[in-house]
Amino acid sequence: MTTCSLTEVGAYQKLKNLAVKPYDLVLHGLSEARMEKFVASGAGLDLLYGCQRIDEEVMGALQELADQLDLVTQFKEMRRGKVINRIDGYPSEERQVLHCACRDIDSEHPAEPAATEQAKVELERLRSFLGELESGNLVNEEGKPFDTLIHIGIGGSDLGPRMVYEGLRAYSVSGRRVFFIANVDPDDAAAVLRRASLKTSLVVVGSKSGTTLETLSNEELVRCAFQAEGLDPARRFLAVTGKESPMDNPERYLRSFYMYDYIGGRFSISSMVGAVTLAFALGIEHVTDFLRGAATVDRMAEKSSIASNLPLLMALLGLWNRNFLGYSTVAVLPYSQPLHRFSAHLQQCDMESNGKSVDRSGNPVKTETGPIVWGEPGTNGQHAFYQLLHQGSEIVPVEFIGFRESQYGEDVVVDGTSSQQKLVANMLAQGQAMAQGDANDNPNRVFGGNRPSLTLVADRLTPEIMGQLLALYEAKIVFQGFSWNINSFDQEGVQLGKRLAGGLLELMQGKIGSEKAAGEFLLKVAGVAQNEAK
Amino acid sequence: MTTCSLTEVGAYQKLKNLAVKPYDLVLHGLSEARMEKFVASGAGLDLLYGCQRIDEEVMGALQELADQLDLVTQFKEMRRGKVINRIDGYPSEERQVLHCACRDIDSEHPAEPAATEQAKVELERLRSFLGELESGNLVNEEGKPFDTLIHIGIGGSDLGPRMVYEGLRAYSVSGRRVFFIANVDPDDAAAVLRRASLKTSLVVVGSKSGTTLETLSNEELVRCAFQAEGLDPARRFLAVTGKESPMDNPERYLRSFYMYDYIGGRFSISSMVGAVTLAFALGIEHVTDFLRGAATVDRMAEKSSIASNLPLLMALLGLWNRNFLGYSTVAVLPYSQPLHRFSAHLQQCDMESNGKSVDRSGNPVKTETGPIVWGEPGTNGQHAFYQLLHQGSEIVPVEFIGFRESQYGEDVVVDGTSSQQKLVANMLAQGQAMAQGDANDNPNRVFGGNRPSLTLVADRLTPEIMGQLLALYEAKIVFQGFSWNINSFDQEGVQLGKRLAGGLLELMQGKIGSEKAAGEFLLKVAGVAQNEAK
Repeated sequence: MTTCSLTEVGAYQKLKNLAVKPYDLVLHGLSEARMEKFVASGAGLDLLYGCQRIDEEVMGALQELADQLDLVTQFKEMRRGKVINRIDGYPSEERQVLHCACRDIDSEHPAEPAATEQAKVELERLRSFLGELESGNLVNEEGKPFDTLIHIGIGGSDLGPRMVYEGLRAYSVSGRRVFFIANVDPDDAAAVLRRASLKTSLVVVGSKSGTTLETLSNEELVRCAFQAEGLDPARRFLAVTGKESPMDNPERYLRSFYMYDYIGGRFSISSMVGAVTLAFALGIEHVTDFLRGAATVDRMAEKSSIASNLPLLMALLGLWNRNFLGYSTVAVLPYSQPLHRFSAHLQQCDMESNGKSVDRSGNPVKTETGPIVWGEPGTNGQHAFYQLLHQGSEIVPVEFIGFRESQYGEDVVVDGTSSQQKLVANMLAQGQAMAQGDANDNPNRVFGGNRPSLTLVADRLTPEIMGQLLALYEAKIVFQGFSWNINSFDQEGVQLGKRLAGGLLELMQGKIGSEKAAGEFLLKVAGVAQNEAK
Repeated sequence: MTTCSLTEVGAYQKLKNLAVKPYDLVLHGLSEARMEKFVASGAGLDLLYGCQRIDEEVMGALQELADQLDLVTQFKEMRRGKVINRIDGYPSEERQVLHCACRDIDSEHPAEPAATEQAKVELERLRSFLGELESGNLVNEEGKPFDTLIHIGIGGSDLGPRMVYEGLRAYSVSGRRVFFIANVDPDDAAAVLRRASLKTSLVVVGSKSGTTLETLSNEELVRCAFQAEGLDPARRFLAVTGKESPMDNPERYLRSFYMYDYIGGRFSISSMVGAVTLAFALGIEHVTDFLRGAATVDRMAEKSSIASNLPLLMALLGLWNRNFLGYSTVAVLPYSQPLHRFSAHLQQCDMESNGKSVDRSGNPVKTETGPIVWGEPGTNGQHAFYQLLHQGSEIVPVEFIGFRESQYGEDVVVDGTSSQQKLVANMLAQGQAMAQGDANDNPNRVFGGNRPSLTLVADRLTPEIMGQLLALYEAKIVFQGFSWNINSFDQEGVQLGKRLAGGLLELMQGKIGSEKAAGEFLLKVAGVAQNEAK
């Protein structure tokens, strides 16, 4: 199948025409009929999109766009192991994209059996490792159980696991704690090392290549700290890495868990990168629930009708806002404090995937590609940046995420309503306010409205729903990448900075760097030229 | 003095003309002469801006713009107590803007003596309170010292204090901990209440009006938790609020510290909103160092030459990117893990101040106003969203912040360089890569360049430098608001959502809400209509 970009199919011009005069939410208001019409439900998620600037004609054209671009077929091919991480005619990664295989663990006929088998093997090895911890076979020098885990990794080996851990702390195994170290800033490790009790700590080091600069530096810092306390790293350091990477070394690690080259860093939460740390913190059953939730959405993403394929629907609404209405950012605003790192994870997953400018044949793209994704939890954001969302000169499409029940179920009634009710009411009211706007004699109190939003609602943020949300956004991102006809799975854009940093580090050591001329004065101007290695 | 917008002065058209063909960083490259020319230094900060798309002509025109708009005069008037939080001819807050007065504590002749005197009184009351804690006069029911503080507040009463606390944890008083509760999501409080030892905890509740919905709900949740453990809230709850607000009540609070209506929430860190919690955590001397740092920059902001007025310079470079080159977002990327909440704080301070659409006379603005501000620390971001910064279809001006030394000074040499060196080298390399770009035969490895950035460098993130950075951004935001001729100090945009949420909450209680028709089906569609108050 030859792929093409959204500009090359018939539905594109139709949508362009419709976008000249998009549905006016202020003029027509939000009726019950409208709100009920534009709801889609699947797995444990309800997607309310009546506050988008769409009507049935737009939705029809978006379905046509999806069909004409064969988006679902491409998704099916991805799950079945097609080599889609590539640029036609140029050197590229030439890899399969099989993060979904890691969670296809309950299927009788997995989409890609070999990869799912590899995932199951690792899960069983993990289960057995956790059993050793629980049975007391695996203990520290003093015979005490490990109650703390220090997770070292950066990017995909950090944001995803951290986001899910924060999201599901309510489900933690009692008495267990996790700390994360990511930044090469030595203060990141120093702060954690002050707080963690090293004697009873395990350490997970995650790097697919086994060569990530930040991660190896932090690992060394942490190893030194253990050694300084007379504790043996080989007794407690675990590796999550590619088979035969420099980190796949039983002399340095108590155990290695494997990830494979068909799993990109930003899609790796469901592999051992997330599973080891999450299983320590939450127990293996919560991890498998999480994986099952994700698998449910992966299967949903193979449905051809946008009415029953939530990630496809979200992808298309995103394209409508990005390429037809011209909005360059998306705010993801979970009304859930446990999801406080969800948007940070999405920044990576979305922006690293779709922040591209050439298509899958190496030609310059003809449209805008991935938007800037940002956000913080509500209601906090209401007291921070929502002013701009309501009255700023920039229009920001919003994606709200909320739950009917809290995780802990501990609540209080003030002024006749619970905090959970206040939380949900605020979320719904914000979407309504952005859509409808409001008139006022005082121009400073006028709300222009027509600011689009959608709202995802689930009953409760459980491990399974967490998996569903994750897979929903992953598939959305993949569908959008297909629509722009870009390779969402490489990250060539990070290479130049790495190379130039290497040159500066050589200069700092008094070696002659490859880009000496530019670098020397940069260090001088920044006042760091004399900063010798200690 | 009559104020006007940047579009109404002569320099505007000059800059518009210059923006047609901005300085080409790829074509001309970064020379030593250029980099050295475009450095400004003041207080403990160096601002490197050679990687902006500017030349001397642009800088001259920006200085003219500042002069023609009387930006510095307006800043001076603000500090001296002019009522600038207002909209001419319409009902508005009609207040002074005197956050700078809180830190003008060392001046022989403070700019606004009465407000500074009020700040000094509160600081002395705080000092004496801390003395009681330290001397053992103020202890818990069992005679033990308070070692934990739970800070309840939202928006300005949360983001700022939390950001500074995280930024300066390296300076903490040994053994003291702080927890923050902001979100009305009951899981926020539940998670903190599980971790904090209530017996030895103080609680600070911050709300200027004493009526903030989220804060009062969380306060009630936390009071119940203390009472459930048989602990007396009145013995340990402190209020930070306006004099005579409903919270200014000695029967419910051990002590009240005051803030005044001339301090906006998002500018309130230097008032008691930040000071009480920070002084408990860091000691009062670190807080006064922080205030002194901020005051240094406030004074710098009164200099008329952009070469020696860093906040003004940053404001103008921001305008250049926003209004002349047309970029709608700004990424603030601190190469410092302790500053991991700095960008979140700025989101509030900047976007709530300048996300406006009417000018100070109530007329629609004719230009774009405040940009979307976002960001996460480097080097983490390099492994996340930098792909889009380098190769995405959207150009994002970047503000890097870095330090020559780490806070803890604990480091390790790997491959010949320390982690701190790697951190700084990466920051400098990123700006260089974004500016210069890179050619390649493989189109997927081409970097277009001409992506502007600036870099702030200081020796070390001390309390004083933290204060300087804070005041730098606050003044930058104020200068930009002046330039757009908007009122940066109100937040009418948050009102509509509040009102609609109130209506939904009435519906949830079975009362007839003011906007019943719209609300009822919204609850129904979201599946929360039956969610009775418990």
